[in-house]
Amino acid sequence: MRIIGLMSGTSLDGVDAALIEIDGTADATEWRLEAFVSVAYTDEQRAAIQHAIEDGGAAAICRLNSELGEWFAGAALSACAAAAIAPEHVALIGSHGQTLWHDPPAPGGRGSTLQVGCAATIAERTGIPVVSDFRSRDVAAGGEGAPLVPWVDQRLFTQPDRARVLQNIGGMANLTWLPPAGATQPLLAFDTGPGNALIDAAVEAATDGRFCYDRDGEWALSSGPEPALLETLMSHPYLQRSPPKSTGRELFGRPFVHRLVEERAPGTREEWASLIATLTAFTAASIADAIERWVVPLGADEVVVTGGGARNPALMGMLRQRLTIPVLDGDVLGIEPEAKEAVAFAVLAWAHVCGLPANAPSATGADDVRVLGSFTPGDAARALPFADARRGRSG
Amino acid sequence: MRIIGLMSGTSLDGVDAALIEIDGTADATEWRLEAFVSVAYTDEQRAAIQHAIEDGGAAAICRLNSELGEWFAGAALSACAAAAIAPEHVALIGSHGQTLWHDPPAPGGRGSTLQVGCAATIAERTGIPVVSDFRSRDVAAGGEGAPLVPWVDQRLFTQPDRARVLQNIGGMANLTWLPPAGATQPLLAFDTGPGNALIDAAVEAATDGRFCYDRDGEWALSSGPEPALLETLMSHPYLQRSPPKSTGRELFGRPFVHRLVEERAPGTREEWASLIATLTAFTAASIADAIERWVVPLGADEVVVTGGGARNPALMGMLRQRLTIPVLDGDVLGIEPEAKEAVAFAVLAWAHVCGLPANAPSATGADDVRVLGSFTPGDAARALPFADARRGRSG
Repeated sequence: MRIIGLMSGTSLDGVDAALIEIDGTADATEWRLEAFVSVAYTDEQRAAIQHAIEDGGAAAICRLNSELGEWFAGAALSACAAAAIAPEHVALIGSHGQTLWHDPPAPGGRGSTLQVGCAATIAERTGIPVVSDFRSRDVAAGGEGAPLVPWVDQRLFTQPDRARVLQNIGGMANLTWLPPAGATQPLLAFDTGPGNALIDAAVEAATDGRFCYDRDGEWALSSGPEPALLETLMSHPYLQRSPPKSTGRELFGRPFVHRLVEERAPGTREEWASLIATLTAFTAASIADAIERWVVPLGADEVVVTGGGARNPALMGMLRQRLTIPVLDGDVLGIEPEAKEAVAFAVLAWAHVCGLPANAPSATGADDVRVLGSFTPGDAARALPFADARRGRSG
Repeated sequence: MRIIGLMSGTSLDGVDAALIEIDGTADATEWRLEAFVSVAYTDEQRAAIQHAIEDGGAAAICRLNSELGEWFAGAALSACAAAAIAPEHVALIGSHGQTLWHDPPAPGGRGSTLQVGCAATIAERTGIPVVSDFRSRDVAAGGEGAPLVPWVDQRLFTQPDRARVLQNIGGMANLTWLPPAGATQPLLAFDTGPGNALIDAAVEAATDGRFCYDRDGEWALSSGPEPALLETLMSHPYLQRSPPKSTGRELFGRPFVHRLVEERAPGTREEWASLIATLTAFTAASIADAIERWVVPLGADEVVVTGGGARNPALMGMLRQRLTIPVLDGDVLGIEPEAKEAVAFAVLAWAHVCGLPANAPSATGADDVRVLGSFTPGDAARALPFADARRGRSG
């Protein structure tokens, strides 16, 4: 079965599309990546998303939902083109959507999460059935709705002989600790805190919006972190909370950086570089601290880093400096580090159509396992086989 | 198959839930209403929805989506209780959701529509699979995404010997013209313009929010419409556009009434009554005008009125005065007039699981017919049968 996974992360870089071939049973999964494309958002597209998140109302969100559906469909068709596979030979799309808001559950209350990117539009433009809205079922079942990748990590990347930490650094940073195959312990997974979001926002502010990320870690490497500020940042309450926990740009996003910039009013290039170096060190330290505190006690033989952050040598250097266990590049997983999240949503779509529950309650805090996502039919010819089975059911 | 239809309309009155039993094939549909409940929104609930529509941002909409899911689930369980049927004996829920925004397609562009009310939450609380988000596929296929009830109207209410107009008066007013059974003409359906929304907003303004609709048409019957204002209102460009067309509170909602109130500054009870009578006359005249202009030329033997507006004797009286063909009460359809829309979404959910396309392109303007909606699994035991069929497919 060929499946496309679509991911548009909190970084707002663009849409990632991974086309995989998967052949799975309840116990084993064979898969391979056939194509991976990353379609960058234009400035206008990024501004439209930012507007909807920060101050757009119902009208803006309604329009963005449709537009994202068009952009996601375009990315899916690009992945087909890159793999030289016609869309009619793709069985399914798994679309994460763009998170506009995410409220983890408060004590005594429930959480809520909102991903947009019209599934019907993706299905209409590609003709391919779509599974979408993966997080909301876990949230409805008392969970954080995140992280969802751990179940996929366990299926695809568990090692027979060692415990692995898979550290993903996107807009936010999240990890999955996988016990060796056959171990009885449940996996552990949580958001460690900020990923690239703070660094990106600071570079954007430093360059008046001309650059949106610290390419090759140049800004951070040209200066050093300020120890006092780093210490203050490391006292953030999120870092003290024990997992499972999840976070987002509400906590570690532009407003966080804008407050810092207001307080410190960096003027010279050197002052900006120092701020960016400190935010890079904060990101590395919050990751390393989480690993040392919550994961090393369970036994951990290696850390494998994926996501855009793996391309930032300053961040990777600081991470290696702070950790005693080996820190490996994501390519040991056999896929480009950037492709991992998109692959995960292809596998989650596969789980949906197989009726396999795919949340890990030890990671999300949900009451129990659940089948995640909603299914939107593709073109008419594809809709019918499903229908026969459904019609046969009675209440 | 027992199915619950859930409707929360533009009136923001509350959630309607209809539990039906349906036994259908591609050619014939037998069905009966087992229970209908209408759960009124509290003032707080209505205010939360209004806030999300008028000035809420991503955070407010995210939370409302979850909350509506909880309220919708509550209404579905109330319908089960009213019918004395356990939720595990209900096969499916069709949930319209709450429309937060609806932009019809602009020339050269596409429309967009946003219904919220977390399907995963409904499925989680009830254990029943949910079909939701019916409008967006029609919009993606070039349609207005509305009206969707006509396909259901045709299936359930076509007469062998006469052409029928089904006129629904909710927040907005919409009609379906059904040719006699076996006729080759396609049905015609469109939003005629305002339903109760303008009258409700004016009563609310007249009573400082103590009343939210004109009970028994008392306000309107205590005065008479102002001919000059009525004539101005009737020149509204929406009424001149030829069908298919759809509208919403963006055009005929509170801001419309607030502008009128600002211009005319009614002070006395009599001045308010005259304004309400004029808005009632505008609603009746816009409906009658649409019927005379677009429907009577096709042949029309009777008008059947459903929706909350059917309970307003002032509105019904004005409608009867303006039309030469018989105007019948909705109970000739064999169900309470208020239940019709909720029943329709139960039938649309049934169409989804049967793989039946359920948009009428002659009504929505879509390029072609489409299977509408997205499917969210119920509890684990129910998710599996579908999965077997899906797993069997290959791309």
